[in-house]
Amino acid sequence: MDDLQKLRQKNLETIFHPKSVAIIGTNNVKGTVPHDILDNILKSDFSGIVYPVSPREKSIKGIKAYKYVIDVPDDIDLAILVFPSPVCHLALEQCGQKGIKSVIIISAGFKEIGEKGLIREKQLIEIARKYDMSLIGPNCLGVINTAPETNLNASFAREMPDRGNIGFLSQSGALCTAVLDYAIAKHIGFSKFISFGNKADISEIDLLYYLMDDDETKVILMYLEEVSDGNTLMKAAQEVITKSGKPILIIKSGRTEEGASAAASHTGSLTGKDEICDAAFKQAGIIRCDNIEEMFNKAIAFAYQPAPKSEKVAIITNAGGPGVLTTDAAISNGLQLAKFSEETTKILKRALPSTANINNPVDVIGDARADRYVAAIQAAFEDSDVDGVFVILTPQSMTDIDTIAEEITKIAEGQTKPIYASFMGEKDVASGIDILQTHRIPHYSLPESMCTSFHAVFHFYKNLKPKVHELPVLKNIQSGLAKEMMGKVLSNGRAFIPEVETIDLLHTYGLPVPRGRLATTVDEAVKIAEDIEYPVVLKVISDHVIHKSDVNGVELDIQSAKELKEAYQRIHDNVSARMPDATISGIYVIRMITGCEELILGIKRDPSFGPVLMFGMGGIFVEIFKDISFGVAPLSYEEAKNMIEQTKAYEILKGSRGRAPRDIDSVIDAMLRLGQMAADFPEIEELDINPLFVMDEGKGSVVGDARMIIKNSL
Amino acid sequence: MDDLQKLRQKNLETIFHPKSVAIIGTNNVKGTVPHDILDNILKSDFSGIVYPVSPREKSIKGIKAYKYVIDVPDDIDLAILVFPSPVCHLALEQCGQKGIKSVIIISAGFKEIGEKGLIREKQLIEIARKYDMSLIGPNCLGVINTAPETNLNASFAREMPDRGNIGFLSQSGALCTAVLDYAIAKHIGFSKFISFGNKADISEIDLLYYLMDDDETKVILMYLEEVSDGNTLMKAAQEVITKSGKPILIIKSGRTEEGASAAASHTGSLTGKDEICDAAFKQAGIIRCDNIEEMFNKAIAFAYQPAPKSEKVAIITNAGGPGVLTTDAAISNGLQLAKFSEETTKILKRALPSTANINNPVDVIGDARADRYVAAIQAAFEDSDVDGVFVILTPQSMTDIDTIAEEITKIAEGQTKPIYASFMGEKDVASGIDILQTHRIPHYSLPESMCTSFHAVFHFYKNLKPKVHELPVLKNIQSGLAKEMMGKVLSNGRAFIPEVETIDLLHTYGLPVPRGRLATTVDEAVKIAEDIEYPVVLKVISDHVIHKSDVNGVELDIQSAKELKEAYQRIHDNVSARMPDATISGIYVIRMITGCEELILGIKRDPSFGPVLMFGMGGIFVEIFKDISFGVAPLSYEEAKNMIEQTKAYEILKGSRGRAPRDIDSVIDAMLRLGQMAADFPEIEELDINPLFVMDEGKGSVVGDARMIIKNSL
Repeated sequence: MDDLQKLRQKNLETIFHPKSVAIIGTNNVKGTVPHDILDNILKSDFSGIVYPVSPREKSIKGIKAYKYVIDVPDDIDLAILVFPSPVCHLALEQCGQKGIKSVIIISAGFKEIGEKGLIREKQLIEIARKYDMSLIGPNCLGVINTAPETNLNASFAREMPDRGNIGFLSQSGALCTAVLDYAIAKHIGFSKFISFGNKADISEIDLLYYLMDDDETKVILMYLEEVSDGNTLMKAAQEVITKSGKPILIIKSGRTEEGASAAASHTGSLTGKDEICDAAFKQAGIIRCDNIEEMFNKAIAFAYQPAPKSEKVAIITNAGGPGVLTTDAAISNGLQLAKFSEETTKILKRALPSTANINNPVDVIGDARADRYVAAIQAAFEDSDVDGVFVILTPQSMTDIDTIAEEITKIAEGQTKPIYASFMGEKDVASGIDILQTHRIPHYSLPESMCTSFHAVFHFYKNLKPKVHELPVLKNIQSGLAKEMMGKVLSNGRAFIPEVETIDLLHTYGLPVPRGRLATTVDEAVKIAEDIEYPVVLKVISDHVIHKSDVNGVELDIQSAKELKEAYQRIHDNVSARMPDATISGIYVIRMITGCEELILGIKRDPSFGPVLMFGMGGIFVEIFKDISFGVAPLSYEEAKNMIEQTKAYEILKGSRGRAPRDIDSVIDAMLRLGQMAADFPEIEELDINPLFVMDEGKGSVVGDARMIIKNSL
Repeated sequence: MDDLQKLRQKNLETIFHPKSVAIIGTNNVKGTVPHDILDNILKSDFSGIVYPVSPREKSIKGIKAYKYVIDVPDDIDLAILVFPSPVCHLALEQCGQKGIKSVIIISAGFKEIGEKGLIREKQLIEIARKYDMSLIGPNCLGVINTAPETNLNASFAREMPDRGNIGFLSQSGALCTAVLDYAIAKHIGFSKFISFGNKADISEIDLLYYLMDDDETKVILMYLEEVSDGNTLMKAAQEVITKSGKPILIIKSGRTEEGASAAASHTGSLTGKDEICDAAFKQAGIIRCDNIEEMFNKAIAFAYQPAPKSEKVAIITNAGGPGVLTTDAAISNGLQLAKFSEETTKILKRALPSTANINNPVDVIGDARADRYVAAIQAAFEDSDVDGVFVILTPQSMTDIDTIAEEITKIAEGQTKPIYASFMGEKDVASGIDILQTHRIPHYSLPESMCTSFHAVFHFYKNLKPKVHELPVLKNIQSGLAKEMMGKVLSNGRAFIPEVETIDLLHTYGLPVPRGRLATTVDEAVKIAEDIEYPVVLKVISDHVIHKSDVNGVELDIQSAKELKEAYQRIHDNVSARMPDATISGIYVIRMITGCEELILGIKRDPSFGPVLMFGMGGIFVEIFKDISFGVAPLSYEEAKNMIEQTKAYEILKGSRGRAPRDIDSVIDAMLRLGQMAADFPEIEELDINPLFVMDEGKGSVVGDARMIIKNSL
């Protein structure tokens, strides 16, 4: 953490727990933001002192108002600015003079409106730096802290949410209003609720670190429209997750090109490919959600109930159909139906009528009242094969909905296994659902959301590593030589770097390059071929030839000196026939590789996440099925392995159905080295190894061809 | 329609529109099914006369009761049986004697409880047949008809739903209670609501035909746990859809094996593969849904709003973030953002503040009140590129939620373009949502459901054909010869039919079989090879050899008589070395095919849908990516073409990326012929053509190998 970050952490403490707050620019006009913020603070039973600051009014809502913040006779921990944007800097300057370190700027009219606003925003930051102040906003809804020792609603939200252990961060203020309205209806409580707006100073990353250490927060949710510094976000998320074990759920909008361009029009920032964002979040352990409902469905599963020890669940229902639908949803989402012990079956047989289904899914039958539900749930909880209980209810004529809900909340108390419920319908079941929600039993209207949420929790804790993946120590990297080579490449001002040079650079990082050399005469070519042994491949090397096969500049499977001489001549003839002006630097003679699979490894530099590694198998795997995976470099061994395993190509590589297993470890090694190279050389914009030949297990892999695009400032 | 089906249609008319109803087995005990049904009929303002029938009571709820139904002095249109299952047949017998033609049997305790119940159920059907009666049930919730001239709630549902134009059919009674509760809360109205239970007599198919002609019904929904006669269901659905243009939406549970087995345990029926059900529904034009919410989300889009002419929509929002999320959802679900005309842009510029985003998605900004929404929606409706309007609202402090909702309902009136809304949140937006729902504006809490629903409606009407696909007239089918061959195959009692015989049978249906014949001597083999021209392939044919390659019984690419003789001997040697006891029937000499793609065509008999055709491309397409498609046979040309086009293999076949296009038409022809053969010969359990070689466009395709499994009762 640098000094600025440390300062922000310190100042965040007074943003959330101020003893005194000045509202600068407030007024007496109900229904306006400047008024509503003051009103909200007063209504939330704030434990500190509020000082209204207004150039015009003597008092606001019966509280003495000051003309300027410097007029306030006492110390101020937190200032909230609601002045129009053109004069915000004047007020901020005064805050600095007054010694205020923490400021929330609610006002809009900054970066989001374009050039003019951007200048204003920069001015604010300069002032903040001058006085060691930290800012939230501008252009935000404000901040809410439900901790009872503070009770601060420093926002213009319509209502204060319940207290709870979910921390919510949002780049969009408008979305916050929808989230609050949704959460209040479902009794979802928050520890901290922060609209961080344009994040001129304090960013989502600072807030992540703050929530990591916040005892009130168990689950962290975030809505993002742009990932400005993806790499730092990943590192922060990894640290928060591994150190605190708190899950991080993020909605990142702009998945599609159209969505991204709509987002860019109001955040003004570049976005990379969405697949990369997906891969990066996964790599960091972040759970990406598509919408508010999905996010809260998962969040309440994390916040309300213990983590499941396995994916084995018991389903208890009073209707067969919904039981089947839930079973379908469970299996489709990677869960399993627990197998009841004989003991459980015996208990269920005794407790339920003879027409009931005592296997999992248990059908307590349409006329079931609370007693049958209780018996079945209790039996399921006690079965050692059950690690989670799903209760399904349909409102049939005998169903005592509220009693069943109450009984569920009682049984759940003190349990070490999670219980979720789905009361199907809407009107008659509403009061029962309310009881569940009030007592922190996760309720889902859809069996799908119930199952995906359960799976998310299970998967998160299963993958929670004791520490961040260690980056591997890679041997045989000739950093000095590599730097020298790159220097040479850069010095002659080219952007497109062809095969031989790229391969030479890869060689310095210990990647398996092909046996062979560049020949400038036919005799030299024969000598190289004899050194490396036949069969060989000849390839034309020329700065003017980009696609060698377009000029018939490649000859494969050459078995003898005679064949080589003919092929050598043919290449020269072909090139001069098709590109008479091309200068041939030489003919590349390399050992021919057979009996292998062809892979593709690539590097791309993403505007948010930096160097990203791409893995795929050549041919139809990439071409037709887009069977590729991404990972942010540099990678750990596990991450590289995981990139391979998540593709369908892995089925081929691991050697199923009579195929020989291939040397996956050598591919992982190549990926790690390539990733390291990408991280070491920010000049590399793109690098493609296509193909990388991978041989049978233990026999390694070899680069078949490679090229590179560098950012050359020359 | 056979006589029984016609009878059911006639009797369904009195089930829905009876002038007089007898409730047989009713009582005075509130909260019991026999009482609640009578109570519901009375509460629903039924326009006819109700006759309680009770062996014990003189009157029920103040209405004179009769001991037996034959005691009722007037004619009875409809009887509702709520007697315990062991005595139901006695009551039904009396109904027959009384001349009642339509009966709803609510009582449970039949097929669903096993053998004993099944016997009872069969007894009911016998009685029904004797008296030309039609039955709904047993084991059901009952029937609701909201048509004002009838107003019948002959069910034990907790409440009568609103009147509307959705017809709902359900195999599960319990699910009905959840559906009603859900629908009532959302003001979703029904024309007919039918729980058909065990469908001992009247099935979902009879009900489909009834709703086809029912003017009150515009959209048909169904919940099914088993597809007992998939083929008839498909035909009925196709007829209903093409004749009436009414969409059919079905939830078919038991998608997973575990779900299917849970379903089987309470319906007692076999299920085929879920992929086949998926394919069959698609082929019939049925929209398959996963859950109640998805079904109603789509149903209200169909029922409430005009069909969109294109997939181009305008999004109007008061918050950027949700606008981006909706854009993402739209694009991901196959919709497009409309491009506004200059005129529209001008209007929006005038009507909205300068900070608003006047491009699509339109952001009317957080402080927007109804007037801005109205202006933007109006402008969007008038733009010729817009074919649908999505209104997004977040509850910000200035937002006049209810007024905006009311204005939307006003603007929507008389519009020929659809408008959907999403008011995000839950508590504060509830009253606005209620206004929308009451006025038939489809409301969605998630942008995803809004977009998938819009897409479903667009796609349905786009694919609505003027008539059912015509089956092709296939020339050169030698039916007589084929029957003779199959007779021979059946007569010797085998189940597994090997290559040569299968290929001969395929030949009678005009499938492109390889040039070649069976040779029993080496000289004969040479003669055949010379006839068909080299290169050729030799394959051992033996009843004992199932996998030819396991015994090295195949020799490829034979170029001359010399090579052939050697190969011929090698096969004999190999087989006798590996399977000394195998009798060799001969060596199959066929023309070698090169320069082609290898496809797989198969037939499988599904327990619900009968003969099903399978299409895929060999190698990793099928093996790794499971890239296969299914179609219920016989197929139309379009259906076969569609089966190919929905696979990724189509990318290869159509000849993208420098590949030559292959002869897709010849593959379609082979599929049609294979489908016809499967339909003509129910004995065929399985048939695999693997590979089918497909050559370049215009050059046809050839069966490479084939085998067949038949159901041989010998």
